[in-house]
Amino acid sequence: MNVRKPASEDTLTAWIASQAAPGLGPALIRCIGDDCAIFRPSAKEDLLFTTDFLIEDVHFRRDTHPPTAVGHKALARGLSDIAAMGGSPRFCLLSLALAPWTDERWVKSLFAGFFRLARRTGTALAGGDLAHSAKLTCDVVVCGAVARGAALRRDGARAGDELYVSGRLGKPWHRHLRPEPRLAFGRLLSGRATAAIDLSDGLALDLHRLLKASGVAAVLDRVPVVRGSTLDQALHGGEDYELLFSMRPGIEPPRGAIRVGSVVQGRAGLVEFQGQPLTPKGYDHFQ
Amino acid sequence: MNVRKPASEDTLTAWIASQAAPGLGPALIRCIGDDCAIFRPSAKEDLLFTTDFLIEDVHFRRDTHPPTAVGHKALARGLSDIAAMGGSPRFCLLSLALAPWTDERWVKSLFAGFFRLARRTGTALAGGDLAHSAKLTCDVVVCGAVARGAALRRDGARAGDELYVSGRLGKPWHRHLRPEPRLAFGRLLSGRATAAIDLSDGLALDLHRLLKASGVAAVLDRVPVVRGSTLDQALHGGEDYELLFSMRPGIEPPRGAIRVGSVVQGRAGLVEFQGQPLTPKGYDHFQ
Repeated sequence: MNVRKPASEDTLTAWIASQAAPGLGPALIRCIGDDCAIFRPSAKEDLLFTTDFLIEDVHFRRDTHPPTAVGHKALARGLSDIAAMGGSPRFCLLSLALAPWTDERWVKSLFAGFFRLARRTGTALAGGDLAHSAKLTCDVVVCGAVARGAALRRDGARAGDELYVSGRLGKPWHRHLRPEPRLAFGRLLSGRATAAIDLSDGLALDLHRLLKASGVAAVLDRVPVVRGSTLDQALHGGEDYELLFSMRPGIEPPRGAIRVGSVVQGRAGLVEFQGQPLTPKGYDHFQ
Repeated sequence: MNVRKPASEDTLTAWIASQAAPGLGPALIRCIGDDCAIFRPSAKEDLLFTTDFLIEDVHFRRDTHPPTAVGHKALARGLSDIAAMGGSPRFCLLSLALAPWTDERWVKSLFAGFFRLARRTGTALAGGDLAHSAKLTCDVVVCGAVARGAALRRDGARAGDELYVSGRLGKPWHRHLRPEPRLAFGRLLSGRATAAIDLSDGLALDLHRLLKASGVAAVLDRVPVVRGSTLDQALHGGEDYELLFSMRPGIEPPRGAIRVGSVVQGRAGLVEFQGQPLTPKGYDHFQ
């Protein structure tokens, strides 16, 4: 490779494969270097799949996000979805389109951030695609696994359930750089919570989505705000990557959980907060 | 939705889900509308995963590619990889970033082309991601299945094998609009071919890749060229989406296969053509 840009797709692919190899689990029979990755599933587990973009000037900016943070975040978004279903990550696929400004050093730093989180969470890089584009674009698929039938869904909340979040909300932007997917917390919810979702688009919008999927309403009593942030940031800011979940009353939530309200009968998706309906406003790509 | 652009992510997601529902197979327990898709695998099968970008002004152009062709091609690229491993598609995930020029009619036509091919090939749309970007960007993951241990890989070619392609090469550009993934042909190769790859980057480069993975060389005797195309187009043009495969001598290839040469001992990846080494030149995003 030269310093300006990778010499060829095959050269970059070979370098990525050399870095990814230590993560290869026994169920991954073949990864980078063939038309497809080959995965041998276990009959005892259901598989979870999620895919998330990370696009320059949409999800991150070159001047505020170092490349290691871009690599970290590209993977963290999908891992947070796996956490919300109570799963454990198995492998991921990374599609990466390099922008004209990308040099080899920047790309290798992106991969350093990506692989650090991948190794720490047991996520093997099984394959992907390379291309070029006007803006740097990552699309990451994560495959996770849960015991058969044990996946936490959005649609199980029932009237009478208590609502919790896994931590304070409205994190300042610098804490958005390297969000920590709540994988261990999510696994504790499996078999105990009635429904769960990760807070990527803000409490107001994501709570609305959980309630709508479950066909119920809620009363929001309390919003735990990160020190220095506003209530509006906690309600409508995205990218907290905490978990929001519901539990039957009397069931003890995991340590660190904060109660925010309760599920009630009512119009599906409706949230009452401070005696008023709360607008399901949050991050939306088309508004 | 208004006519200019989708009203919100949730509205567009709900419309996509209403279109995708008929494709939901029994193994897909949950698809669009949760944090992850949930898939219940069979213990008798290995799973195949591939991911492919389709980016405006890189893989397609608005002025030459109608939206139905963009939707078709976004899915066809991954299906061709599943074909090359001898698999059958199970489900796919579509990540779609809309450009500022995209209106609702164009997006719905893209989905029409996508779903037509998905239904015809038994590929359920299980999930995805929506975003916006400067250029329209699709990234499609396809999951396929094969009987345990039966996936066709690139690394099984041995000296003495015969080399074949599934059809003539160097297709003119208008036949690139809606490439037909060779799924039925690929399934016929399972258990019979020693190695296979799909021809997405040209015979010269993809043959080199198959040979390199297998640690062998080849003599190319014959290149079957589509009428009206040149030898150079057949050797170095991409996007034919035919299959290239190797078989032990004496094994009858499927109907329609065309013999192109034979595998020999030699430097891994080396191709001799007309008495000269053939340069592994083809489509490369970084050259």
